[in-house]
Amino acid sequence: MTREEALVLLEEMDREITRISHITAILGWDLQVGGMPSAAARDRGEQIGWLETQAHAVSAGKQMEEVLTVLGASPDQPSGNPFLDDRSAALVRLRYDAWKKSHALSPDYIRRNAVAVGMAQVAWQKAREQDDWAAFKPHLELNVSLARERAALYGSGDGSPLYDALLDIYEPGMTSVRVDEIFASMESHLRSLLNRISGKPVPRQDFLHQNYPVDVQERFSRKVLADMGFDFSRGLTGLSAHPFTTTLGSHDIRITTNYKDKSVAEPLFSTIHEGGHALYEQAASNDMTSGTSLAGGASLALHESQSRLWENIIARSPAFWTHYYPVFTTLFPHETEGISRDDFVRAINVVRPSLIRTASDEVTYGLHIILRYTLEKALISGELGVDDLPSAWNDGMERLLGVRPRNAAQGVLQDIHWAGGDFGYFPTYALGNLYGAQFWYAMRRDMGAEAVDHGIERGDLSLVREWLKNNILRHGSIYTARTLVEKVTGSPLDAVWFARYLDEKYTALYDL
Amino acid sequence: MTREEALVLLEEMDREITRISHITAILGWDLQVGGMPSAAARDRGEQIGWLETQAHAVSAGKQMEEVLTVLGASPDQPSGNPFLDDRSAALVRLRYDAWKKSHALSPDYIRRNAVAVGMAQVAWQKAREQDDWAAFKPHLELNVSLARERAALYGSGDGSPLYDALLDIYEPGMTSVRVDEIFASMESHLRSLLNRISGKPVPRQDFLHQNYPVDVQERFSRKVLADMGFDFSRGLTGLSAHPFTTTLGSHDIRITTNYKDKSVAEPLFSTIHEGGHALYEQAASNDMTSGTSLAGGASLALHESQSRLWENIIARSPAFWTHYYPVFTTLFPHETEGISRDDFVRAINVVRPSLIRTASDEVTYGLHIILRYTLEKALISGELGVDDLPSAWNDGMERLLGVRPRNAAQGVLQDIHWAGGDFGYFPTYALGNLYGAQFWYAMRRDMGAEAVDHGIERGDLSLVREWLKNNILRHGSIYTARTLVEKVTGSPLDAVWFARYLDEKYTALYDL
Repeated sequence: MTREEALVLLEEMDREITRISHITAILGWDLQVGGMPSAAARDRGEQIGWLETQAHAVSAGKQMEEVLTVLGASPDQPSGNPFLDDRSAALVRLRYDAWKKSHALSPDYIRRNAVAVGMAQVAWQKAREQDDWAAFKPHLELNVSLARERAALYGSGDGSPLYDALLDIYEPGMTSVRVDEIFASMESHLRSLLNRISGKPVPRQDFLHQNYPVDVQERFSRKVLADMGFDFSRGLTGLSAHPFTTTLGSHDIRITTNYKDKSVAEPLFSTIHEGGHALYEQAASNDMTSGTSLAGGASLALHESQSRLWENIIARSPAFWTHYYPVFTTLFPHETEGISRDDFVRAINVVRPSLIRTASDEVTYGLHIILRYTLEKALISGELGVDDLPSAWNDGMERLLGVRPRNAAQGVLQDIHWAGGDFGYFPTYALGNLYGAQFWYAMRRDMGAEAVDHGIERGDLSLVREWLKNNILRHGSIYTARTLVEKVTGSPLDAVWFARYLDEKYTALYDL
Repeated sequence: MTREEALVLLEEMDREITRISHITAILGWDLQVGGMPSAAARDRGEQIGWLETQAHAVSAGKQMEEVLTVLGASPDQPSGNPFLDDRSAALVRLRYDAWKKSHALSPDYIRRNAVAVGMAQVAWQKAREQDDWAAFKPHLELNVSLARERAALYGSGDGSPLYDALLDIYEPGMTSVRVDEIFASMESHLRSLLNRISGKPVPRQDFLHQNYPVDVQERFSRKVLADMGFDFSRGLTGLSAHPFTTTLGSHDIRITTNYKDKSVAEPLFSTIHEGGHALYEQAASNDMTSGTSLAGGASLALHESQSRLWENIIARSPAFWTHYYPVFTTLFPHETEGISRDDFVRAINVVRPSLIRTASDEVTYGLHIILRYTLEKALISGELGVDDLPSAWNDGMERLLGVRPRNAAQGVLQDIHWAGGDFGYFPTYALGNLYGAQFWYAMRRDMGAEAVDHGIERGDLSLVREWLKNNILRHGSIYTARTLVEKVTGSPLDAVWFARYLDEKYTALYDL
């Protein structure tokens, strides 16, 4: 097999794997949005399982191994021979990583892990409902031990911490040494900012919780989505219990929302959040990438940088509401009576330590993540036993946020991740915020801060949209997150930008 | 390989093929009902193509051939060795038929046919819009020649007419000699009945076309569907341009409707029609069959017998409206003011020769089918050239129905079937009516005509539903249509029952 033949075969196999992932997404969409009858759940699971088996056969198969070998992929050279162009090197990198990971685990491990995770998730749901830590504990112990086993199998064997092999699943190339450093800087800044804010009066938020007709909420959300640049000819929006973004084809990117008639902020910001993910998927699928695994985000954290940049940095800013608040008050005249734009902006940016991560604000969110990161790292290294986890959680909450859960349901049992065996995932959420802020300042440097702000104030989001598209989104996953952030901003990921962003925003909002 | 091993493998392969067909149906549902963006059409086509390739690989593969050989399948013994039980024999029959058909055609033929049919359908759509027979003619010529080629490849070589090999695709075991005989009897009866009706005044229908609010129409349709026994826990209803029924899993059977606010009859009867198909699919998927290709109808005509029995024999009967008309008038008090049950029943049963098959009534429908059957048989045998088709069509319409199309759009160009290469399909529609009537009288024989009628008059459809389920539906495709009709009614298909049904009904309705 020549290199040229190998490249053609690699492309073909990658396209088949991508196509199967799109088909799987269609089945998932129907399941979550299309109202599939619950009696169909078992069949649907088997259909999805069959598709995964087909994808695995290509991804982990003999032909893939041969092709990757011809292209020079190896542990020392994960992107193949240096002669490959960026696009080909990226395809080799992604396929080699998947091939390696699928061969690292024995069928016996995969079976044991699937059973354990399946049972742990069911047990977790029940344990959370009944606030019964003891019932979940043995499942978590098994999950930790399986994660350690997996980390050892995935690991490079170069003496790096076990946890790094897990982190690498979700954020390739990231290490715990880097995260430690970044999070240490973030922690000290967030705690000091939180401290300054805590002395100030809490803005009122009551008007966000009234009867907001769902059809009017939807009209407003769709207007914002259109202004953001969501291409409705290449996607659509639906309703589901938990909002998500999914890719059903090169030109079929969909998002969901869960509107609530008694609450206006959460559905709106969740739509904008998913819209940020969708803009990434839509722009990442282009002439260079579409139909391949390159038509996606560079990493989970990079993806999260886009959703959070749109949700928080753009859509929670005073500038954004300079344009949109008059539109909003026209749609909701009764609900916004006597509420100024500034009242509204303060209400959607209230900072207050709370027990639940998903309900937390921009400032405390990172502290919730630091707690989880610290604890899961200690669980994997063995420094912390599962027995001691609840008290470590509660002590951590008290130290970082000054609040202490009264029970496990509102504490250590609140997230599904560990029940699902996803250790190493949490940091990507906070890294997304950091990437987003670093991009935000690079954008202001490139385009001029005033031009960016004035555009947003006029409801013209095109400067933001086009800069993100040209600098980040259109590259899909051709570059790693690490390469991309350096290319675009000129320096590696640094927590200083997020700190600067929060300081500027909250100093003004809270009159610090 | 032992026979036992072969049976296990056959079952496994059949389950995989069935699963792939369900996945394909999910993609089709999303395409037609879920609002897929049109930009996704190309990808979606390729996704469906990939699924078909996977199914073909199993269905036409080496392992299938080996298994079928071990089980004794051969041209003389299409259900395999006589020692097989009914269920296993049916699996062998279905899989052997598919295997044979997929090997009869060369890849070159498949490619030529796909291209021709694809182009013919596009040309047909345009030709019909522009009433341009000449533009469609060369495409039809090619389609006829390809159908003749296919018929020769599928044919048994025993000297039977080419057309029989095409008929067998849609109604296995049926021959043109049998259809000739059955249709001759049907034709003379329908023409004489039509003649008697023609002398009578045409009932008024104007009140069927007013503003009927769609949401109320939907409520009424869903009530009827529930009463028919459609299991909403194993299916759902949606909206699409053209109504259809589809099976997305063993417990996921869905139908669509296209409501129109200015018309109440068409959407209702189309929902009941699809409901009849859905009841078949729901009951055909049971402990004995589910997840295999046995969980479907015995043939197209058998499937159509159920949809038409519910739509016409049950839901257009005076007995049905004895119960439902009061419900209907409560939902539509204004629209039905001054209209009696009898007015309503006469309006939904108006008989009037017309040019368009899909808009025709129970009496003239069969004549439309006889025309198409006669013409396509002559096209395939070569007795009729495509050049002479339009005049043959118009002459036939005049002879059978006493009306003559003024143009090709309302004549020979009205149906998509020939553009799609589907010669041999049309007869199944009329055979469905005949099967339905024969079942109807068997049901009355078994349960007592009075009990059946009184049940329907009370809105209790359970006698009808359970008889159909126990005698026909639950067998899925274990028995052929031919075997099933004899098992259930005691005799082979006979046009006499349909004639009797129409006579009884229209004598009373039109006071003949």
